[in-house]
Amino acid sequence: MAVPDHPQAGDPVFDLHVGGKMAIRSTVGLTGPDDLSLAYTPGVARVCEAIAADPELTRYYTWVPNTVAVVTDGTAVLGLGDIGPAAAMPVMEGKAVLFKEFGGVDALPICLDTTDTEEIIETVCRLAPSFGGINLEDISAPRCFEIEDRLKERLDMPVFHDDQHGTAVVALAALENALRLTGRDPGTTRVVVSGAGAAGVAVTRILLEAGISDIAVLDRRGVLHSGRSDLTRVKQALARDTADVTGRRGGLADVMAGADAYLGVSGGTVLEEVVASMADEAIVFGMANPNPEVHPEVAHRYARVVATGRSDFPNQINNVLAFPGIFRGAIDARATAITEGMKLAAAGALADLVGEDLREDYVIPSPFDPRVAPAVADAVTEAARRDGVARD
Amino acid sequence: MAVPDHPQAGDPVFDLHVGGKMAIRSTVGLTGPDDLSLAYTPGVARVCEAIAADPELTRYYTWVPNTVAVVTDGTAVLGLGDIGPAAAMPVMEGKAVLFKEFGGVDALPICLDTTDTEEIIETVCRLAPSFGGINLEDISAPRCFEIEDRLKERLDMPVFHDDQHGTAVVALAALENALRLTGRDPGTTRVVVSGAGAAGVAVTRILLEAGISDIAVLDRRGVLHSGRSDLTRVKQALARDTADVTGRRGGLADVMAGADAYLGVSGGTVLEEVVASMADEAIVFGMANPNPEVHPEVAHRYARVVATGRSDFPNQINNVLAFPGIFRGAIDARATAITEGMKLAAAGALADLVGEDLREDYVIPSPFDPRVAPAVADAVTEAARRDGVARD
Repeated sequence: MAVPDHPQAGDPVFDLHVGGKMAIRSTVGLTGPDDLSLAYTPGVARVCEAIAADPELTRYYTWVPNTVAVVTDGTAVLGLGDIGPAAAMPVMEGKAVLFKEFGGVDALPICLDTTDTEEIIETVCRLAPSFGGINLEDISAPRCFEIEDRLKERLDMPVFHDDQHGTAVVALAALENALRLTGRDPGTTRVVVSGAGAAGVAVTRILLEAGISDIAVLDRRGVLHSGRSDLTRVKQALARDTADVTGRRGGLADVMAGADAYLGVSGGTVLEEVVASMADEAIVFGMANPNPEVHPEVAHRYARVVATGRSDFPNQINNVLAFPGIFRGAIDARATAITEGMKLAAAGALADLVGEDLREDYVIPSPFDPRVAPAVADAVTEAARRDGVARD
Repeated sequence: MAVPDHPQAGDPVFDLHVGGKMAIRSTVGLTGPDDLSLAYTPGVARVCEAIAADPELTRYYTWVPNTVAVVTDGTAVLGLGDIGPAAAMPVMEGKAVLFKEFGGVDALPICLDTTDTEEIIETVCRLAPSFGGINLEDISAPRCFEIEDRLKERLDMPVFHDDQHGTAVVALAALENALRLTGRDPGTTRVVVSGAGAAGVAVTRILLEAGISDIAVLDRRGVLHSGRSDLTRVKQALARDTADVTGRRGGLADVMAGADAYLGVSGGTVLEEVVASMADEAIVFGMANPNPEVHPEVAHRYARVVATGRSDFPNQINNVLAFPGIFRGAIDARATAITEGMKLAAAGALADLVGEDLREDYVIPSPFDPRVAPAVADAVTEAARRDGVARD
């Protein structure tokens, strides 16, 4: 098939996208009737019969255990919002390519023509025999929480919403190293998480699990606390575990004064004087893409450790550091779920890779560090065994 | 990932299936941050925005137009019957591999955990933004008819139930050549179609469209005719266009006496004396796999042209002669449907490839004849344009 001429010819991004970014590859030869009779009829019938008699044999004789569906409804794509399933496809293909290149996982982009919570759950459950795992992607909050929770209940396989947990794992790894560098103790560190969507909720949860207890989480209306009447169920639960405990109240400026670390997953911009009000040797992660909440140039005037989501600055908080290795490890363990322990192990492995090279501009490895995915995978496989969800 | 040891090690069929038969391949390079910023964030956002503004751009910048979902519920897999979605996977992977190798089409195996007609239709419609076409596979009759019809109504893309139409196209091509070889006129040829499931219905329909009007179709209880009270809606319609017109009645032995051609898609065995009762220079296609309804050795005692579904005899009626080229042609035309005209064109192209080499043991090309898929694709593309369903 010839590559067609295209409307944006000459633009490198569009040129690269012509024909899409992925393809299917046969892993068996098909050069004559003998090959056909092994890979297809009549030979294949014996494989089907064996699996019908013992469904566990799927693990040996199909590609299913190594596949992951990258499922979206197109409602929260990058920073673009609700652009629909068709327009979400280039991101899902990109994700699938990263799964393959970094984790050796065969990922299939599935863009759904429904945004209804029940229909998404139902559809994914019906697709389940085709896949070894489910990576939810770019589904807007708060539906993403219920969809993930319900799928985890119903499916006996890894289910992972990358916008939540991928971001959380990498942010925790970077923060752990930043705390080490600045000599802070997690138990007494004051953290501000700006944003209470998919990423903000998951980042906060994993920080709590990692022993960071003084966290103020903010949505557009300020700190989440139980005195507010406008909180969703998920935000209420978060409030109980954060500001309700610490008593912190108010807006961003209130909680940033004296804070040790700022983790932005909200978009928007933090005023320079607010950044200036943070503690000495502050930690500032502006993770919104493409525009960090605090530009690194501004952040560096006041903070010691600065990270962003961008590849053109040091310390890139990039999900690709997490999801390929997490799924690789879960698949290798034949895990029936992805546990909190597996996520924490992934973050620990990422942080450890930096090791003695730890510096202000190196609190997290590069996405192209070839040690990353294997180290994360090994840690995740071990954690799956510890947590009792591994079948291998 | 190391290939695991497996329970049937040493068996060539199972050895070949270890790890499955297919994989995902990235078609873009990802060697550093620059690649990542083109194929993924931030670059990809511009492609998403362009598609959100004009969904037609999907055709240029995603893999969607070249993809086909191979969808099954596992209810009618090969001759094995209802073995379920997990056990159907090796066949669907095999199909996907054939799509790629013979047609350059990226096919994805989708095994559904539901056998409910409405749920299958709904699920496929929700998946539609992810695919350029739908190949239904191994879904039992009569549900397969309604599922295909309803999906064709609802979706603006090629929908094709291969067990019906793939078989029909190849059988027609072989029969056309057999008629030519034996000097028969389609308009006066007497045909017996044994089997009124997915394949039998479609074979009969395409023969009628090709001008063969004297057809007796049989299910297990004999010839379909409107005098019977046990017929499904689909069989009733078929009866009206076949035995109701010709007046043929009875069982297989009744209609085989003097018949010119026998097309078996039923399984079971035809008694030798019944084969013997056919017209001189009879045509016998026993297409059941792996055991033809009439063994070629028996058939050759009475018939001039003999075909089977098997690769170890001449004249193999194999769907792989049709579906890769049909979808290749439909995709190249950006067809919104697969019309009857496109199927007839595919059969014509297949028959024509035999050309002047036509012999008793060569009424249909080999699946490994490299001319097949391109010839079928070209004919299908042209027919799509004639039928007004092409967008290119």
